[in-house]
Amino acid sequence: MNDTPGPLLQSLPPDLIRRFAAIVGPEHALTDPDQQLPYLREWRDTYFGQSALVLRPASTAEVSAILTLAHAEGIAVVPQAGNTGLVGGQIAMRGEVVVSVARMTKVRTVDAVGGTMTVEAGLTLAECQQTADRAGKLFPLTLPSEGSCRIGGNLGTNAGGVGVLAYGNTRQQVLGLEVVLADGRVWDGLRALKKDNTGYDLRDLFIGSEGTLGIITAAVLRLLPKPAEKATAMVAIRSIEDALALFNMAQQAADRGLTAFEFMPRLVLDFVLRHIAGTREPFAATYAWYVLIEISGAQADGTANRQLESILTDATDRGLVIDAVMAQSIAQARDLWRLREGISEAQKPEGGNIKHDVSVPIASIPVFISRANAIVERICPGARPLPLGHFGDGNVHYNIAQPTGMDKAAFTKLTPQIMREVHDLVMSYGGSISAEHGIGQTRRAELARVKSDVELDLMRRIKSALDPKGILNPGKML
Amino acid sequence: MNDTPGPLLQSLPPDLIRRFAAIVGPEHALTDPDQQLPYLREWRDTYFGQSALVLRPASTAEVSAILTLAHAEGIAVVPQAGNTGLVGGQIAMRGEVVVSVARMTKVRTVDAVGGTMTVEAGLTLAECQQTADRAGKLFPLTLPSEGSCRIGGNLGTNAGGVGVLAYGNTRQQVLGLEVVLADGRVWDGLRALKKDNTGYDLRDLFIGSEGTLGIITAAVLRLLPKPAEKATAMVAIRSIEDALALFNMAQQAADRGLTAFEFMPRLVLDFVLRHIAGTREPFAATYAWYVLIEISGAQADGTANRQLESILTDATDRGLVIDAVMAQSIAQARDLWRLREGISEAQKPEGGNIKHDVSVPIASIPVFISRANAIVERICPGARPLPLGHFGDGNVHYNIAQPTGMDKAAFTKLTPQIMREVHDLVMSYGGSISAEHGIGQTRRAELARVKSDVELDLMRRIKSALDPKGILNPGKML
Repeated sequence: MNDTPGPLLQSLPPDLIRRFAAIVGPEHALTDPDQQLPYLREWRDTYFGQSALVLRPASTAEVSAILTLAHAEGIAVVPQAGNTGLVGGQIAMRGEVVVSVARMTKVRTVDAVGGTMTVEAGLTLAECQQTADRAGKLFPLTLPSEGSCRIGGNLGTNAGGVGVLAYGNTRQQVLGLEVVLADGRVWDGLRALKKDNTGYDLRDLFIGSEGTLGIITAAVLRLLPKPAEKATAMVAIRSIEDALALFNMAQQAADRGLTAFEFMPRLVLDFVLRHIAGTREPFAATYAWYVLIEISGAQADGTANRQLESILTDATDRGLVIDAVMAQSIAQARDLWRLREGISEAQKPEGGNIKHDVSVPIASIPVFISRANAIVERICPGARPLPLGHFGDGNVHYNIAQPTGMDKAAFTKLTPQIMREVHDLVMSYGGSISAEHGIGQTRRAELARVKSDVELDLMRRIKSALDPKGILNPGKML
Repeated sequence: MNDTPGPLLQSLPPDLIRRFAAIVGPEHALTDPDQQLPYLREWRDTYFGQSALVLRPASTAEVSAILTLAHAEGIAVVPQAGNTGLVGGQIAMRGEVVVSVARMTKVRTVDAVGGTMTVEAGLTLAECQQTADRAGKLFPLTLPSEGSCRIGGNLGTNAGGVGVLAYGNTRQQVLGLEVVLADGRVWDGLRALKKDNTGYDLRDLFIGSEGTLGIITAAVLRLLPKPAEKATAMVAIRSIEDALALFNMAQQAADRGLTAFEFMPRLVLDFVLRHIAGTREPFAATYAWYVLIEISGAQADGTANRQLESILTDATDRGLVIDAVMAQSIAQARDLWRLREGISEAQKPEGGNIKHDVSVPIASIPVFISRANAIVERICPGARPLPLGHFGDGNVHYNIAQPTGMDKAAFTKLTPQIMREVHDLVMSYGGSISAEHGIGQTRRAELARVKSDVELDLMRRIKSALDPKGILNPGKML
């Protein structure tokens, strides 16, 4: 998967570099490789890019001036926010001008009464959460990278995360956008409205377009009431089939108070207990599958705890839950969450790992996992599937650890074959080959393979209509 | 506002009529004016259309064949579902071929476990609700016209309604779509996925596009858990400013359990009590403003009632609520709702009525109403504003009844001037001139006037990309 820089495919004459630099100021127009490094290096070292020029505009007007010039001269640009994307969408591979919004970090307005805030694209997700919190509100988007990812990137990729079950993905948190178009014009769609039926839904077209249709410079985000209490439990179940019945019980009982329903098999818990300091076995016995359940309540009146207890009692009576532990304190809840949050890190010491970020209709999750496991065992006997994820979203991070003792490179070489067969299986259930990470570079060839010709044609028509010269993030997504 | 048919601007040679008729069968290809009448007459008699041919296809394949032929021959078509739209978007004005989806009423699948159903565009909204109900689930979209409007029209216009506050508008109820494109190709986007980040959001582009980008033939709709209990109250407040504080209290307390928060001034209640049989004064005294509040609970454990009581007690202590009545039975709740639901009908006997369907940020509702009233009083002294609607959505149906005793025609003549000034005021708050009804014919000129050139250009580029010959619903929206 490692792409190393080839020859610089787009270089810029000094005069053009000067004209770009004049827009942002010379200190924010980077040509020095050391200074460019943070904008070219993907954080897991999966991609290493190259750029004729990295620009760090401070305002929408500067982004607009950059694109006006780039459009006039036919210069390709790659928009970048926090540089935390998982599919290489933010990395310039062919010398493109990188336009980083990292300096655009203003909170333009906070309207606690109306339940909105308007922020610039460079604000980190954690700063968005904190801004909401200071206003007595909740901004519900939650990601492992929230300390460094920036909201412009979350918007550009329609980021997901643990909170999607109750609150929806990034798309659902947005009321309005400000976007600089390919030719430098600014679309002011910064509306703070819950209802607006005046024409095409341009907002949702830009969200998730991965910088190929415009550069998002600001957004009006929804603020929600803060939950006043949470109840958390880890439960053990016999089979993933039982997770489906348990999920439906929990959803019927808690409705939209059900804020997490995360599943993992025993092997994943083994990895976490083995490699993550400070974690410990939640039960005296070991079980096949585990589910982390969280219920949030609007009032601090014990309703969340009562609902969770009632769900667990009913599910135990019906034989769905075979063991359960409810957190009795915030510290205990944190311990349970650590078992979920340590998963990503805990896979690394186990060697090679082939990752999928797929979704299927939730009723198909059990049969999908069973058939995917069979594919993996046929292609690579002894490989260890780690199907885990956000059950209620149908989102399975179908990861596969290499067989113990196998050569890592030999295992990694199987990636294309396994990925293709797993993705074909996903498509047979009407699923998605990228539930929350996007397409970028990593899944571009697979997208072209699994999407219908009609859908690819529709996407290309829209791309041509909005970026006729093809200067925005070329080679990504489409 | 009455448009009468002019000369038939598009007529079809007999051979072409035969070729279209061969697709759907001659009995479903209507040229006889009497047979065409239900498809040409707008139900309030605001528009009366004309069509060379009304086609009633029975399947997606037939819709596809119709558009393939229409595209090849350059024939304009007007898609139509339940013919209940309020802005004339569904009426053929210039002889276009009407394509009615009213015969496409199959429920293709219901997946109660996965929480989805796939239905065809001709199913009425009431049938959608009943299908969900039979599966033990809730389909939350609710409209006064639900017995006759069809889901394809709801999707095409992104319909709103009373349930938007808690459940979102039509857009939020949709997971996937099947759309016949302008050239007859079928986009199969019938995905039942909660998370799918594989390319541009085509689904939301078609939803709300009012038949100008494609004909929606089927959809995968979300099913939600049914509320197990509801608590309902009518409260009296001193001023619309107090509604804002009360709304924020209610939302903080009930969060997404708050399923209705509808406001109306005394004059509206006067009209309802005067003209709607079986309604009665909710309080011993009369007050300036009324709010209908509903809270829904996932469990039948009395939580909804307790939450509502607690809100009313707190709000009364703070002086926000000056009188309140809580429904003690389902019959009493129905009586309170009748006061809201009778509003539309109650306005007719009072003479001329100028209607707006606007939204503004909710914190701006009070000042918007006050300034709009001043505009109305300046232009037409004695006119009676009836600002009412869905407070939590920022959606004000800013209607104006004519002054008592004024000539109706003289009042109606003031419509353009009043509408322009009210819409300018709306735009000054970053609002929307059509919160839930759409643009169609009625608001087309106003849309062109209030939208930025950049936004109109983006919309036109998308229209040209997806319907290069301009055959889909010409003269509507754009």
